Amino acid sequence: MSFWTSFRMRRPGMLRAGLLGATALVALLPALALAQDAPAEEAPAMLLQKHGDIIWTLIAAMLVMFMQAGFALVETGFTRAKNANNIILKNVMDFALGAPLFFFIGFALMFGTNAGGGFMGLSGFALSGVDGSALEGQWTLTFWFFQCVFCATAATIVSGAIAERTNFKAYLMMTMFVSAIIYPISGHWAWGSFWLGEESMGWLQALEVPFVDFAGSSVVHSCGGWIALAGAMLLGPRIGKYTKDGQARAIPGHNIPLAALGVFILWFGWFGFNPGSTTAANGTVGYIAMNTNLAACLGVVGSLITAWLRFGKPDPSMTLNGALAGLVAITAGCNDVAPIGACLIGFMAGILVVLSVEFIDKVLKIDDPVGAVSVHGVCGFFGTVMVGFFAAPGFGGDVEGLLYGGGTGLLLSQLLGACSIAVWAFGGGFVVFKLADLIFGIRVSPEEELKGLDITEHGSEAYSGFQIFTVE
Amino acid sequence: MSFWTSFRMRRPGMLRAGLLGATALVALLPALALAQDAPAEEAPAMLLQKHGDIIWTLIAAMLVMFMQAGFALVETGFTRAKNANNIILKNVMDFALGAPLFFFIGFALMFGTNAGGGFMGLSGFALSGVDGSALEGQWTLTFWFFQCVFCATAATIVSGAIAERTNFKAYLMMTMFVSAIIYPISGHWAWGSFWLGEESMGWLQALEVPFVDFAGSSVVHSCGGWIALAGAMLLGPRIGKYTKDGQARAIPGHNIPLAALGVFILWFGWFGFNPGSTTAANGTVGYIAMNTNLAACLGVVGSLITAWLRFGKPDPSMTLNGALAGLVAITAGCNDVAPIGACLIGFMAGILVVLSVEFIDKVLKIDDPVGAVSVHGVCGFFGTVMVGFFAAPGFGGDVEGLLYGGGTGLLLSQLLGACSIAVWAFGGGFVVFKLADLIFGIRVSPEEELKGLDITEHGSEAYSGFQIFTVE
Amino acid sequence: MSFWTSFRMRRPGMLRAGLLGATALVALLPALALAQDAPAEEAPAMLLQKHGDIIWTLIAAMLVMFMQAGFALVETGFTRAKNANNIILKNVMDFALGAPLFFFIGFALMFGTNAGGGFMGLSGFALSGVDGSALEGQWTLTFWFFQCVFCATAATIVSGAIAERTNFKAYLMMTMFVSAIIYPISGHWAWGSFWLGEESMGWLQALEVPFVDFAGSSVVHSCGGWIALAGAMLLGPRIGKYTKDGQARAIPGHNIPLAALGVFILWFGWFGFNPGSTTAANGTVGYIAMNTNLAACLGVVGSLITAWLRFGKPDPSMTLNGALAGLVAITAGCNDVAPIGACLIGFMAGILVVLSVEFIDKVLKIDDPVGAVSVHGVCGFFGTVMVGFFAAPGFGGDVEGLLYGGGTGLLLSQLLGACSIAVWAFGGGFVVFKLADLIFGIRVSPEEELKGLDITEHGSEAYSGFQIFTVE
Repeated sequence: MSFWTSFRMRRPGMLRAGLLGATALVALLPALALAQDAPAEEAPAMLLQKHGDIIWTLIAAMLVMFMQAGFALVETGFTRAKNANNIILKNVMDFALGAPLFFFIGFALMFGTNAGGGFMGLSGFALSGVDGSALEGQWTLTFWFFQCVFCATAATIVSGAIAERTNFKAYLMMTMFVSAIIYPISGHWAWGSFWLGEESMGWLQALEVPFVDFAGSSVVHSCGGWIALAGAMLLGPRIGKYTKDGQARAIPGHNIPLAALGVFILWFGWFGFNPGSTTAANGTVGYIAMNTNLAACLGVVGSLITAWLRFGKPDPSMTLNGALAGLVAITAGCNDVAPIGACLIGFMAGILVVLSVEFIDKVLKIDDPVGAVSVHGVCGFFGTVMVGFFAAPGFGGDVEGLLYGGGTGLLLSQLLGACSIAVWAFGGGFVVFKLADLIFGIRVSPEEELKGLDITEHGSEAYSGFQIFTVE
Repeated sequence: MSFWTSFRMRRPGMLRAGLLGATALVALLPALALAQDAPAEEAPAMLLQKHGDIIWTLIAAMLVMFMQAGFALVETGFTRAKNANNIILKNVMDFALGAPLFFFIGFALMFGTNAGGGFMGLSGFALSGVDGSALEGQWTLTFWFFQCVFCATAATIVSGAIAERTNFKAYLMMTMFVSAIIYPISGHWAWGSFWLGEESMGWLQALEVPFVDFAGSSVVHSCGGWIALAGAMLLGPRIGKYTKDGQARAIPGHNIPLAALGVFILWFGWFGFNPGSTTAANGTVGYIAMNTNLAACLGVVGSLITAWLRFGKPDPSMTLNGALAGLVAITAGCNDVAPIGACLIGFMAGILVVLSVEFIDKVLKIDDPVGAVSVHGVCGFFGTVMVGFFAAPGFGGDVEGLLYGGGTGLLLSQLLGACSIAVWAFGGGFVVFKLADLIFGIRVSPEEELKGLDITEHGSEAYSGFQIFTVE
Repeated sequence: MSFWTSFRMRRPGMLRAGLLGATALVALLPALALAQDAPAEEAPAMLLQKHGDIIWTLIAAMLVMFMQAGFALVETGFTRAKNANNIILKNVMDFALGAPLFFFIGFALMFGTNAGGGFMGLSGFALSGVDGSALEGQWTLTFWFFQCVFCATAATIVSGAIAERTNFKAYLMMTMFVSAIIYPISGHWAWGSFWLGEESMGWLQALEVPFVDFAGSSVVHSCGGWIALAGAMLLGPRIGKYTKDGQARAIPGHNIPLAALGVFILWFGWFGFNPGSTTAANGTVGYIAMNTNLAACLGVVGSLITAWLRFGKPDPSMTLNGALAGLVAITAGCNDVAPIGACLIGFMAGILVVLSVEFIDKVLKIDDPVGAVSVHGVCGFFGTVMVGFFAAPGFGGDVEGLLYGGGTGLLLSQLLGACSIAVWAFGGGFVVFKLADLIFGIRVSPEEELKGLDITEHGSEAYSGFQIFTVE
């Protein structure tokens, strides 16, 4: 029967009984009543704090879940109308497949008891053994949901870089591997201990100067970004992206307002992503939100100026990516840097993303339609390393970066962590894409690509009734 | 004067005084100060829990309110550009008219003291008698807002099924009846006791094995869905929907990315809808969120596979509806089934919604442009009944379904409840639409329909400046 | 080093230590552990309430931040496709520049220790001196973020009224002055004391009958609206807005569904704006949300009826603006009026906004493409004054308006406050626009305007691939 119950709750009916009680007052007190038959150390204050932690973590998780909409819109808006349904559906599918897989498999690999010396976890498949009737168990379930939407963030990053040319079945296969295996394993390295403590501590946590990635610049964003890079490399550029003499051509997105809305939604959701990573309702959340917002703003400013200087005009798409660049970069250090550090990290990320997009596009000649590799891979890497410089003593994590007299210890750990995750994610992504290529072929035919994936793969149009002329 | 005050608060100035106080610290403590002159049993812990309950319920209510945007986008995106302003305005109006009517009338019918043996309530019109100065009263006001946005959900479901051909005035009349009378009365049957307790217990709550609909698969979604069915039947299909020999033709929606955003917003808002239905800040919310999300994901998978098998291609619109199908179906049992139950209910709902859309479209030949009857009516009914099979002992409601050895008692209650609400909602909807037809005529003229309701009913275009060719 | 740290936290590592602890239980308790070495009066209950206040204020701030997306969409949807990228980018930039400026400068002017007898504050630049390790300091940082997004709201209102013809550099200059100086100074008058108490009390707070603007009808919305009016006047109308004989012509927006989504997002975010202005997790939030929602609904109804009567058809754009009108108008009194007062204020605002839009358009012949002056300026003014009539004894602020026997004292204070802020904002806006005109020229060339700002100022299109015909 355990498959059918997975975990059970032993103190049921609490709420419903309360709601059916004779007065509204009674409805308000189920939890306090609980306290009476709780162990002595479970004082009401402790109980209330736990309730607060669960509510806060859940709300943060919701906000991160909503980022799925943001990614879908950014990727849709920055690509062409003929592929809009396809990219939307891919964004829906990575979450729809990834969340159950993270329930059955991924969470156990990421947070379960160590196997292989901090390489991966191996307990808690389908959350078996969790007692949902106790507050500890209820907190675990909430924590699972929070981690699940983080996993979904990493997974959904990939679709943007490989947009407009990837076979649908190959995409489904790839995204399943990301959510079930690639993301959880490198995630274990940096965050393994967060559920079970020392017995599941990842090897990056066990370094003499532990690796710091508070909310996932590397664990989440770079991971997705480097997988995306592997995919974009293997797929090759879209037809028409490069002229015969190798010059990169811009293929403009079809709906910038929609992409902008996506960026706003991501920015909004990031207040769940970063402050929510406390997974506790304490006072530091406001400080983390402030840092997060300052970095996003300065990322915008950095990219606006850089693009203006390079292209002669303030560029809307680049500037929108600048906000994301700042957000990705501050994610690792949002709890550990001073506000001025957040400003500088964001500003530099805004500059970096413009240069990186150009470099990948024009020098490496890798076609990343939405700039996902630059935003998530490069800026995530950059932000992780910057913690080694800007971590300020006296802030959340109490670690010291090079600029604050902490020496090179932290910096080296940050470099090691960011590189390890990069190698793992790129390598894992490469293998899975290769595998998918053998099984399904990862690229649609040139005819399908020219006609658009909406008609050829899905038999539908995104904008029926609108006059659209096909670009390329 | 009572009409002018409705309720009054006897302990005023609390906050403002705090904010004007000499230190920020003082501003933080208004509520604790309160505790000092509270009765002895109103200990600080109790007060804090109440604050948490109010904040959580309010946040959940906000999220459900935001679902109004989701419904508006889904219905707009899945219909034609020439009617976009009309469907948007209808979606705004049902909330704008419904919320005040639920304040003045609906809440009293739904949660007031029983009249007619559990058939309806009859006290609390305009929330008169509620003391907003006491925490109990403040909780009631918050509870009202939460219930108000639930009412608005039921009301707004209707517009999708009757889109692109319904007279605007008739729609306004219909939606007022839904919010003020139809929804509150059947709502009373299942949830009547939630404000005043036993004295307002609905007849479905008073069954020997009480009917279980935790967050409203039947109370909210099916109610809206069956009213929608009545409307779609009475209106008849849109011009061009069926060929002369009765073959159904697809009339594709004009903006699938917008519809997809709507689905993501609904998914996001559902974390207010289901976990918020605890109306208490306790530990079970994370578990409910997990179940909700698993069902949504598996609904996507179920509909993807089903549509793929039946139509030969993965269909974006159907798959998006699959997410909603899973969400609607798990709503009744989200607090009472094991995660595996949530997965199975969601998966089956995803299959069911595809088959139901086809059945209604091709066999019944009822034209439901967005699939609202299938998503909300059919899957809401299905999910309600599934509680009778999958309710697992040891979970939130502590009820036992057939598969867990609980016998047929719960199953029969679920069938009775789902059918009763269906009959009431369909019947009530039928009567009101008939009435509206007598007064205003429910259908626009063929000329208006062909030209589009935006120009003919509102004298405006949704996409001025875009080249649009009129479909049909 | 103070520039590099700005503020420091003296009790670090709290969270990280918790997360790395041996059990999940430990992770839940960091804050309670804190209580042990806290002063005796910092009992656990007080600590928990503070945590709740911080979490609630942060969540409210996030929602207000999300309103940036709402403003961007409303302004984009209500203007033409050829300027969509431009208006989006302006909306991104006002937040990206404004938030850091409010960190370094604005907050100190608004909430710092008085200079000039309640005219402005002058301490707390870059939040220096705030101890982020203590809960008081953490609350200040959260409060800063909340105030920051309020500032951003005022700033972003301006862009709508001056859309489709304003030079980009001039806009950047203007928005920086708004966030750093204009908004904070008048904000100090009404809200100065909220951080430091009496020593920073603004002169409107120090009136014998203090000015009441609970959440900012005047402080935020009118402020933005009157600056917008100054800009629209100085810029003159868009080419083609008025015929040669001076008749106003409608220039329809290009994407009403997007604008409608913007309105829904604003409505949603307003539940952070108004209830969040308690900045405390207490029971009054539900009541404020209810008032806010009733006013929005009645605003819709008022504008629907008014537009229907005047133009012969129910008008989608006007009705959407009616929701915003009701929301803006109730913002001042949401904590101080009875529900029936909220209904009436909203309803009147809905009527007023339609008349005001016509008056400004046809009589004053000022071209405000989105109606920002009417919605935010006029309805904000109106709502502020209405508090003088409708403030009901026994509600949040415990002040009495004229209709409740309170005499004219409050009404006069409201008029004084609303007029003072209007004069300041209009005057300040006028001066800055004039200055910007001298430096950059505030208006683009006729050729640029006709071609559209997207191509001419940004070298990009918003809807590449769609057939668009240029209106005008």
